[in-house]
Amino acid sequence: MLREMILALLVLAAATPAQSGTAADVDPFIGTGGEGHTFPGAVAPFGMVQLSPDTDTRCVLRDCYSHAAGYRHEDRTIEGFSHTHFSGAGHSDLGDLLIMPVAGDEVPLNPGTPDKPGYRSAFRHATEQARPGYYAVTLDGPGVRAELTAGTRVGVHRYAFPAGKAAHLVVDLRSSLYNYPGKILWSGLRLRPGGILTGFRETRGWAPGRKFYFAMRFSAPLVGHALLNREGEVPYKGFQAPGRGSDAVAQLLGRALVARLDFGRIDRPLEVKVAISGVDEEGAIANLASEPGDFGAIRQRTGEAWDKALGAVEIEAALPMRRMVATALYHSLLAPSVWSDSDGRYRGPDDQVHHADGFTFRSTFSLWDTFRAQHPLLTLIQPEAVNAEIVRSLLASRAESPDGILPVWQFHGRETWTMIGYHAVPVIADAYLKGIKGFDADAALDAMIASASYAPYGGLGDYMRLGYVPIDREPEAASKTVEYAYDDWTIARMASALGRRDVAATFAKRAGNWRNSFDAGTGFLRARKVDGSWRTPFDPTAINYGSDYTEGNAWQYSWFVPHDQAGLFRIMGGDAAAVAKLDRMFDYDNSKIDYSHAEDIAGLIGQYIHGNEPSHHVAYLYSYAGQPWRTQERLKQIVDSQYKAVPDGLSGNDDLGQMSAWLSFTALGFYPVAPGTNEYVIGRPFVNRAALNLPNGKRFIITASGMSDTNRYVGSVRLNGQPLTRGYIRHKEIMAGGTLEFRMTAQPNRTWATAERDRPFSETR
Amino acid sequence: MLREMILALLVLAAATPAQSGTAADVDPFIGTGGEGHTFPGAVAPFGMVQLSPDTDTRCVLRDCYSHAAGYRHEDRTIEGFSHTHFSGAGHSDLGDLLIMPVAGDEVPLNPGTPDKPGYRSAFRHATEQARPGYYAVTLDGPGVRAELTAGTRVGVHRYAFPAGKAAHLVVDLRSSLYNYPGKILWSGLRLRPGGILTGFRETRGWAPGRKFYFAMRFSAPLVGHALLNREGEVPYKGFQAPGRGSDAVAQLLGRALVARLDFGRIDRPLEVKVAISGVDEEGAIANLASEPGDFGAIRQRTGEAWDKALGAVEIEAALPMRRMVATALYHSLLAPSVWSDSDGRYRGPDDQVHHADGFTFRSTFSLWDTFRAQHPLLTLIQPEAVNAEIVRSLLASRAESPDGILPVWQFHGRETWTMIGYHAVPVIADAYLKGIKGFDADAALDAMIASASYAPYGGLGDYMRLGYVPIDREPEAASKTVEYAYDDWTIARMASALGRRDVAATFAKRAGNWRNSFDAGTGFLRARKVDGSWRTPFDPTAINYGSDYTEGNAWQYSWFVPHDQAGLFRIMGGDAAAVAKLDRMFDYDNSKIDYSHAEDIAGLIGQYIHGNEPSHHVAYLYSYAGQPWRTQERLKQIVDSQYKAVPDGLSGNDDLGQMSAWLSFTALGFYPVAPGTNEYVIGRPFVNRAALNLPNGKRFIITASGMSDTNRYVGSVRLNGQPLTRGYIRHKEIMAGGTLEFRMTAQPNRTWATAERDRPFSETR
Repeated sequence: MLREMILALLVLAAATPAQSGTAADVDPFIGTGGEGHTFPGAVAPFGMVQLSPDTDTRCVLRDCYSHAAGYRHEDRTIEGFSHTHFSGAGHSDLGDLLIMPVAGDEVPLNPGTPDKPGYRSAFRHATEQARPGYYAVTLDGPGVRAELTAGTRVGVHRYAFPAGKAAHLVVDLRSSLYNYPGKILWSGLRLRPGGILTGFRETRGWAPGRKFYFAMRFSAPLVGHALLNREGEVPYKGFQAPGRGSDAVAQLLGRALVARLDFGRIDRPLEVKVAISGVDEEGAIANLASEPGDFGAIRQRTGEAWDKALGAVEIEAALPMRRMVATALYHSLLAPSVWSDSDGRYRGPDDQVHHADGFTFRSTFSLWDTFRAQHPLLTLIQPEAVNAEIVRSLLASRAESPDGILPVWQFHGRETWTMIGYHAVPVIADAYLKGIKGFDADAALDAMIASASYAPYGGLGDYMRLGYVPIDREPEAASKTVEYAYDDWTIARMASALGRRDVAATFAKRAGNWRNSFDAGTGFLRARKVDGSWRTPFDPTAINYGSDYTEGNAWQYSWFVPHDQAGLFRIMGGDAAAVAKLDRMFDYDNSKIDYSHAEDIAGLIGQYIHGNEPSHHVAYLYSYAGQPWRTQERLKQIVDSQYKAVPDGLSGNDDLGQMSAWLSFTALGFYPVAPGTNEYVIGRPFVNRAALNLPNGKRFIITASGMSDTNRYVGSVRLNGQPLTRGYIRHKEIMAGGTLEFRMTAQPNRTWATAERDRPFSETR
Repeated sequence: MLREMILALLVLAAATPAQSGTAADVDPFIGTGGEGHTFPGAVAPFGMVQLSPDTDTRCVLRDCYSHAAGYRHEDRTIEGFSHTHFSGAGHSDLGDLLIMPVAGDEVPLNPGTPDKPGYRSAFRHATEQARPGYYAVTLDGPGVRAELTAGTRVGVHRYAFPAGKAAHLVVDLRSSLYNYPGKILWSGLRLRPGGILTGFRETRGWAPGRKFYFAMRFSAPLVGHALLNREGEVPYKGFQAPGRGSDAVAQLLGRALVARLDFGRIDRPLEVKVAISGVDEEGAIANLASEPGDFGAIRQRTGEAWDKALGAVEIEAALPMRRMVATALYHSLLAPSVWSDSDGRYRGPDDQVHHADGFTFRSTFSLWDTFRAQHPLLTLIQPEAVNAEIVRSLLASRAESPDGILPVWQFHGRETWTMIGYHAVPVIADAYLKGIKGFDADAALDAMIASASYAPYGGLGDYMRLGYVPIDREPEAASKTVEYAYDDWTIARMASALGRRDVAATFAKRAGNWRNSFDAGTGFLRARKVDGSWRTPFDPTAINYGSDYTEGNAWQYSWFVPHDQAGLFRIMGGDAAAVAKLDRMFDYDNSKIDYSHAEDIAGLIGQYIHGNEPSHHVAYLYSYAGQPWRTQERLKQIVDSQYKAVPDGLSGNDDLGQMSAWLSFTALGFYPVAPGTNEYVIGRPFVNRAALNLPNGKRFIITASGMSDTNRYVGSVRLNGQPLTRGYIRHKEIMAGGTLEFRMTAQPNRTWATAERDRPFSETR
């Protein structure tokens, strides 16, 4: 009896691997409500598979945007579990390969609606559990306990069916996120000898003509199956294919395929191990073999991988903050996700199959978002394992790009041309300037120059000719002008470091182009026409697609000169005028403005919009004007109002980790306002203590003594025991290891880091 | 001046390569009118590219069947030149990558109709020229002289534009044969650096989800281009792609793409060299490089290849007959066509990319047609170069088949499940038994057994259980039963030769299953139901899809026991009764029957239907009943009425060379009634003299002395100078080289080859 009890405890211990440190504090539900668009399912660090429940996929009945990640915490039913999801994207796609367990003799083949469920099931949050790499829920409909885990290229389902009821799975290739009619171009299902089900799907979604392949194996033998085509009108029905008239065919091709898989009455939980591939079905089969082990083994391995990845940052803080920051770090380590198969093959931007020699090809680049803080975070805490591979993936993508340029918004190897800029450029420059190795820097610079010189893209031809993007020829021209100018500045920096003086000179000149779009008369960034005049009428609060700006207005975009904020302030009338203008923005009375028409506008503090990226560096700008205590105030205002350790805890799309990387940095006390400077602007910490376990073996410790709701100001800062009087810290100072001690006070220190020489880098200071 | 004249003559000689022997007599227009469904364009022997004019591709306005090969001799306009065509198929698809030259400033982007042409052009037959590997026509609309040639994996266009007019090409990816709405799933165009245009198309046609890739290079620089998507409603338009708002984008994806390519005013003919691939665009680019040279070089090489291939059979006969037989040989050497890329990669039946190790993968298997005479013809005149590769391709296809069986009707690597039987089996058995080497015979036998034992296919489960296919469970059951029985017999023969006695015994027993479907009461082959009863009502002249028979009726199908015709005749009541029944069939009065509803029913002589394959061996059956002179009469009747050296010269679909192979053999004086016997049944020759230049270096000479319209009977036969008294000749006798001399007479010889021992092989004689 005792022996049995011990065995039972051992089984329980194996079933619930202990998680420690930062990983133990992650709450994957944060961001699954409200506008966060995160998913609660199972994923490994940078995993190719994001196996997660979809609570609704019906764009027709409700808007797609709300279900960009498949799961919405407000929903009460689950349609099934699909294998690919974006973490916090503001547009969507994916939701590939939906699987749902069904118990009993009736097997519905449609999901139905929450009111009239088919294979869809009700669930209760009380039965849910989500940990890094693990998700579980009880499906009340079939009475099935469902557990999910994921390795790098595999997802594993474990379904405990009620005793005495026949076990089935429905595999629905019709299901997809942002599933407009006509999205599914073609698909196939094939039952292979040995009981492996393989298949593929080709979709015209956000990514045009995206190809997705899979292979799955079951822990119990298949005792029956049906492969069905539910397309109403099939122009070619084929002729005398085997099994015609039966559903138990070996393979089926079409545009609306669904499979019913029967396992009979089974007395152990059914495990379904699924591998995906962007290359072909053979690639998926090989990926399946490349990560051996059952549900428990995969869960254990991925749990350990998360412990290690998140162990890069140890946090001490009160629980809500610890949980928020741990989860932010977790959300920052999902993309750019692995895309090459275990054998190195991957499908690139040209839709052709390539081989990644000596690196793992990664995709899912939300660069307009992530160049700001998420990539710098990876450069800091994942430089060797991740960042050189990211740069090599960007360079490979450029080599395979039909346009010959670096990715803009890429996933599953395909370019979507979403958002603006050529922000792979600052990602590479920042990595290079911070000493990341493992790629050919000169070739990288050539790729950056090519991306910055491709006339057909985003008005670049006019930009190169006129010094700005003209609004009468190209939408969102003001945003493009300033973002190009910043990207250009990072090219100049890297070219300078590489000794390529002519390139440096050319792009240093282009870096000043932001001035061509700033209207000193109104004090705002505005769009010019080809003839040089400003477009009118002008309303700095107007937010419209096709306006002068990208997902923003003049209030938000007028601050975007990361490399020359001091230069900007001078045009605005000096530091005092800039501070006053920052305050007008934060304190703006929005009561007379209706923004309900604009997606992605969330998290408003006056005209500051934390829910979207153009604002992300803005609270730090007071420091550039010599008033760092005002930055400290604004950071507290933002953290208090925009982040909560609850499902509805993110004020905007997490955008593949950028919202989370903002919090990760900010909580540590500094932020990379201008990637390419090698400087982090000091704000104020929100954790009591943090330790960065750096890949070089060094530790960098951050402490915040006396921090409380009232002690919200930085009284003083010490670096390695010596007073630090400047308002920024250098990358190499962190990498050298050491301590950064903040003393927090109730009153602002109006002298610390206010001198010109102590302010963060600015090109024309 | 003299020197210039000589140069001009040399240029002319180079431009029009001399063709000799059999190749010189080929008329590719034969079969392009009426029901032949052949194409007149340029193709190399077994070439992957069939570059040919399409006179209409509009299935909506008229039936598709008439334009199965794209070109109809009756038409007066050409839409363009596309790169893939079937030679004489009774169903269709292909017509991939349509290109049309346009001259001047207006470039229509739609073909228009014959009455209101867009880029379509009028043409006159007087301007057409067609030779093996070459086609030319003057396009009256643009005033362009168009010439086509083809290598194995490339097609080359040469367009001479009128002086002073701008030269353009339209590349229309919307165009296709059998182009029902929804056929084009996805496609892409991409202009690469260096002026190479690549692209792809995925279609759901006869072959589901077929992928086609291409690459093309131009002899003149592109001075402008537009890539256009003409789809009315595009669900996803993409975001800020380069070149948005311009048509001069570098790449475009969609379902209705067309490209306009501008070359300006050019003073030399424009050459367009196009390579295709089933693998990917890189494969097409590599194929382009694998066959170097310009239009003239490719034309020269392919001309020589045709001289060599057709030189296997030298013919002496009056011109119409010489032209008919030469063209028949030409049409017999087009399929199974090459499908692997120059690097050995190909896309197989599982839609995955494979590598052909040590052989060239071939596809386009119209096996229900071609097992009868076209494959035996290749076995005789192309054994080393072609036939072992065909068998290896069949075996590779089986290994990659999701159903694990040999091809049924495959093209471009994809299975279409068209027609019935498992006739890859007799193809392999016949090749093996005739000594073809280069494949693993035991593995081949295993593949044959697998194909004959796959229960889900064509009622095989019931067939194996009941000894016949039951019509209440499977359509066309009578045809299936007898064709399976014959295929089974060839398995038994090969198993016996390999010493696999158990297999031989099993399939020898199955070979007798034809008896289970023969109704001695009516004297016809009929379909039984599961309960053993015959299906009623019964009308031996009825031809309907879903009837007891496949593209035929009881009159045609009741003769299909190639391996046991004597056994069949006994059931029919003896030889005299069989002869009387053959006569009733040939002499049937059809005046009260309407067959206008039935496709593929053409070439009627009473109830004998030469235009379709079930009849092809039937004229030879008189010889099995001891009346070879009646075979001789019927053959003359058939050749005189069913073949003509004019476009409307074939009485039915050429079916990838089977109609032509029938004439090729018959004209030589013998025919392979039962592949697997190693015997050819002697009919009567239609050429005065023929020489087979065998691959082993031997020559086999056939002569017909005294042959005339009145001297239509075989008076006597000598083999190598000795009287030949039997009514068949053995394969090894031909392969040994020698002479076969026919003496033709006005009166039948009623004693020659009439004795039982001199009649062709029959299992139960």
